Amino acid sequence: MRFTDFLLDRTSQALRRGPSISKLVVLFAVSSGGLVAYADSRSNYFVESSQGPPKKKLVVLGTGWAGTSFLKNLDTSQYDVQVISPRNYFAFTPLLPSVTCGTVEARSIVEPIRNIVKKKGGQIKFLEAECFKIDPTSKKIHCRSNIGTNLDGNGEFMLAYDCLVVALGAKANTFNTPGVVENCHFLKEIEDAQKIRRSVMNCFERASLPNLTEEERRKNVHFVVVGGGPTGIEFAAELHDYVTEDLAILYPGVKDLVKISVIEAGDHILTMFDKRITKFAEEKFQRDGIDLKTNFKVVKVSDKAITMSNPSTGEFSLPYGMVVWSTGIGTRPVMLDLMKQVNQAGRRVLATDEWLRVLGCSDVYALGDCATISQRRVMEDIAEIFKVADIDNSGTLTVKEIKDVLDDICVRYPQVELYMKTKQMKDFSDLLKESRSNAKLEYIELSIEDFKKALCNVDSQVKNLPATAQVAAQQGEYLAQCFNRMKECEENPEGPRRIREPGRHRFRPFRYKHLGQFAPLGGEQAAAQLPGDWISIGHSTQWLWYSVYASKQVSWRTRMLVVSDWARRFIFGRDSSCI
Amino acid sequence: MRFTDFLLDRTSQALRRGPSISKLVVLFAVSSGGLVAYADSRSNYFVESSQGPPKKKLVVLGTGWAGTSFLKNLDTSQYDVQVISPRNYFAFTPLLPSVTCGTVEARSIVEPIRNIVKKKGGQIKFLEAECFKIDPTSKKIHCRSNIGTNLDGNGEFMLAYDCLVVALGAKANTFNTPGVVENCHFLKEIEDAQKIRRSVMNCFERASLPNLTEEERRKNVHFVVVGGGPTGIEFAAELHDYVTEDLAILYPGVKDLVKISVIEAGDHILTMFDKRITKFAEEKFQRDGIDLKTNFKVVKVSDKAITMSNPSTGEFSLPYGMVVWSTGIGTRPVMLDLMKQVNQAGRRVLATDEWLRVLGCSDVYALGDCATISQRRVMEDIAEIFKVADIDNSGTLTVKEIKDVLDDICVRYPQVELYMKTKQMKDFSDLLKESRSNAKLEYIELSIEDFKKALCNVDSQVKNLPATAQVAAQQGEYLAQCFNRMKECEENPEGPRRIREPGRHRFRPFRYKHLGQFAPLGGEQAAAQLPGDWISIGHSTQWLWYSVYASKQVSWRTRMLVVSDWARRFIFGRDSSCI
Repeated sequence: MRFTDFLLDRTSQALRRGPSISKLVVLFAVSSGGLVAYADSRSNYFVESSQGPPKKKLVVLGTGWAGTSFLKNLDTSQYDVQVISPRNYFAFTPLLPSVTCGTVEARSIVEPIRNIVKKKGGQIKFLEAECFKIDPTSKKIHCRSNIGTNLDGNGEFMLAYDCLVVALGAKANTFNTPGVVENCHFLKEIEDAQKIRRSVMNCFERASLPNLTEEERRKNVHFVVVGGGPTGIEFAAELHDYVTEDLAILYPGVKDLVKISVIEAGDHILTMFDKRITKFAEEKFQRDGIDLKTNFKVVKVSDKAITMSNPSTGEFSLPYGMVVWSTGIGTRPVMLDLMKQVNQAGRRVLATDEWLRVLGCSDVYALGDCATISQRRVMEDIAEIFKVADIDNSGTLTVKEIKDVLDDICVRYPQVELYMKTKQMKDFSDLLKESRSNAKLEYIELSIEDFKKALCNVDSQVKNLPATAQVAAQQGEYLAQCFNRMKECEENPEGPRRIREPGRHRFRPFRYKHLGQFAPLGGEQAAAQLPGDWISIGHSTQWLWYSVYASKQVSWRTRMLVVSDWARRFIFGRDSSCI
Repeated sequence: MRFTDFLLDRTSQALRRGPSISKLVVLFAVSSGGLVAYADSRSNYFVESSQGPPKKKLVVLGTGWAGTSFLKNLDTSQYDVQVISPRNYFAFTPLLPSVTCGTVEARSIVEPIRNIVKKKGGQIKFLEAECFKIDPTSKKIHCRSNIGTNLDGNGEFMLAYDCLVVALGAKANTFNTPGVVENCHFLKEIEDAQKIRRSVMNCFERASLPNLTEEERRKNVHFVVVGGGPTGIEFAAELHDYVTEDLAILYPGVKDLVKISVIEAGDHILTMFDKRITKFAEEKFQRDGIDLKTNFKVVKVSDKAITMSNPSTGEFSLPYGMVVWSTGIGTRPVMLDLMKQVNQAGRRVLATDEWLRVLGCSDVYALGDCATISQRRVMEDIAEIFKVADIDNSGTLTVKEIKDVLDDICVRYPQVELYMKTKQMKDFSDLLKESRSNAKLEYIELSIEDFKKALCNVDSQVKNLPATAQVAAQQGEYLAQCFNRMKECEENPEGPRRIREPGRHRFRPFRYKHLGQFAPLGGEQAAAQLPGDWISIGHSTQWLWYSVYASKQVSWRTRMLVVSDWARRFIFGRDSSCI
């Protein structure tokens, strides 16, 4: 960027910033598209402003799966895009458990967000800062640079937006268990994985020091994983591999003292998977000597011991060397604050509609782990649906009338289709049959009560989407497509018929397409649950895992690095340096 | 290691530890090679002790160039070796400047010390701890584990030794300049390089934030290097490459504001190199726009500005984004403490004799950056040398008598040979000629005064060895060879004749062999000063640098990683993620 470009940039930025520039002292608008001069208390510039109508200012918060997927798919020529995130990179988080043991290096799974946006022709501006307050009323966000204090002032700034895309992700959920924040490791960020890696090595080095009793040595190499979800289980499996494949040779005096415990509050681990996978994983862990403590609830964590309880054993403590806490996600403070402002204070997580628009305010979109789609219930709208379907205003619906709106209903309320699928029904007539068992369908005329009765159970199929990378990435892509075709679809809406208002929705609502999920179990074995409830377990699944994860990398650089890391691990093992 | 081995190990360790085990309550020696039972307050073991006479307990402090080179060359079957270091890895420090900019990854230049010792058949024990006190009188060292406080007690322990090898390295030298420790980066350890890398990226991100004046932006991307030695210059060159090759594309609004300054107290940079190299480097830096401030002394460093002075300009301050301090090495506190105990309190750095034995105590060896060889002056020993040479006790020396001891003298006092080489003399006769210009050598009979006169200038050639990896590695190898042949050379000494005492020295004194030195200058150019004052500058030298540095790697793993890092950099550039 040459100097004139830089000035131009500053000016247009300043102009858009509006009231936030308190230091704007003089502003001469010579002509609307002509020469603009402005001066603030700190600098003087004479600049030519850009031609054409101003683009909408789109601010994106977050560079995780949702934010990055959105940016990658966005047509940046239509918007003036600013991206704010405390991390200037995208991290391929599904490989975080591999980073904890050095199977893959941290640098291999990150890609600078500027590299990603560079491919968009430099139309995106990135600011490394943390948004600590969203103000949807005045359409502003408040940010703070998190890089030291070397910035003059406190590093805070404000940005105005026309559209805001919130993809801030979530924080680890401690369920307010005392001592967790102080004494446990989490596994959400790159830094977490790096800290765990260092901590594992420190535990081994500590256990190798002289003048320790065997009990103390055992304590130092007791690794506890809290949470039997995919992340916790994958970490436990990785750690077991690391210990048996690499560290056992380097720490011969310690290897027999190592113990890995997994604490899970429920009856089983990996409950989001098919029971066959759960069973296989539990059996494999048992063979590997990993101590599975199901039905145990962690009560507190001190700096030396973790206290848990179980109805049969009561409360007891175990000394530990390291605890990794991986029990699900909680809401970030900035999101809680936003929820208060948009009358969602009572909820656990920010709700959006099916188009990812935050409920209770306008021009704010939220996606990924920081929000959840609040699917409208059929029974909430049943009267309106009936009215929309009842074209002749007869007060009753014929099967033909229903069929005319059925497609729109299925798009607007995906639970209807899901319910029919679950009950193995072919079409809507089966649903009617369920409520009215013996009648010739062609002659049926449904009253509102009949209609209600037919649909009364469908809402049971409304489920929240899982907090996975897959969901976030699909939401990002979906929202980018919506933004790209905003104008086009304004004129030719392609969404379903509106139920409460006239006309059609601009876009089809977001629909998640599950592509399957992996659970690596260590020892070059993995389990996979693929669409259509297809289950695959074993060594071949691990190779499927390798190929899928290699292909899903965000750039050729990270792909090459990840694959070469895997190769290096096979040839030389994992590095055990404490750096 | 199985359980019995573990016990055995503990026992033999305990037995050797001697008085340091205050908790040893009962010790039954059933037979000298038989069953031994002991109990301390914390554990109970029944163990069979090892056969044969006990090996000498050799403790090695440090896993840098000197310590690792020593361990790699040591015949571990002869000693009971314990290695103590706060770092459980060896780092290939000459590549540290490359790590600061991500040309090479930190993990690629480290090798776990356990991996290195594993190849010795597991005869070496490693303890990750820091030695904070050496007690040469009672032959004990005091250590502290530096891994958190999770170890019960304070993590301190004591070890007894029969022989101690001190290779603790040095710390950065701040010359007590105020604010340096608080505000500057050093470049001695892996952590330093990683911090610098993060800091460089933070400077760029900070400079990209909104609401900053150009002056503030410029300040954030002003990088200052203090010290014009090889490390500082290589870092400045690396940083310049990083900025121009990678960051300029990703930070178009910042690239023109970047400034790199090198501050050097002397007249020139790279003064340890040939003048042609200095000139080339200075000219290249000028072309690259790197600001060379020679003859500037840094007075203080605040959190925002660096203050320097120069006779012509006086004192002035420059705001900066990051300062890297690389002005040479200082002595660690533990070494200063040792120096006090061995009557070396007045010295700047610990002195050893030419066999690397610490002066003033016995069985302690020191090598690498933590010590310096105090070469005995010829003039100190001149009377004794005369006496040794004067076999017939005539009070005068004939040329034949001199020639008989000349080899020994040249080995014992390498400055003699060096002086003759500098003066382009062929043999000792030339030296005599210098003092007695016209006389037939065969008939000369030298008095002690004549002899003194002939040798009076040779001590001017005594020079301290540079604090480089090359010196440390050669010393480590030399000392290991001495330890390996300790018994053999006791019987058949191979060193020169003793001057003050009868007999011969066991070993030849350490002699450094300079293999040349590189100075990478950025832009795929390097300078090299090879033995015989052969100078090589340019792109081909950079390729020589690549091949030498690849071949010098400590393991095939790091070699592969370093080479693949270089390849990755050529293909994809350097990674700019702030992790």
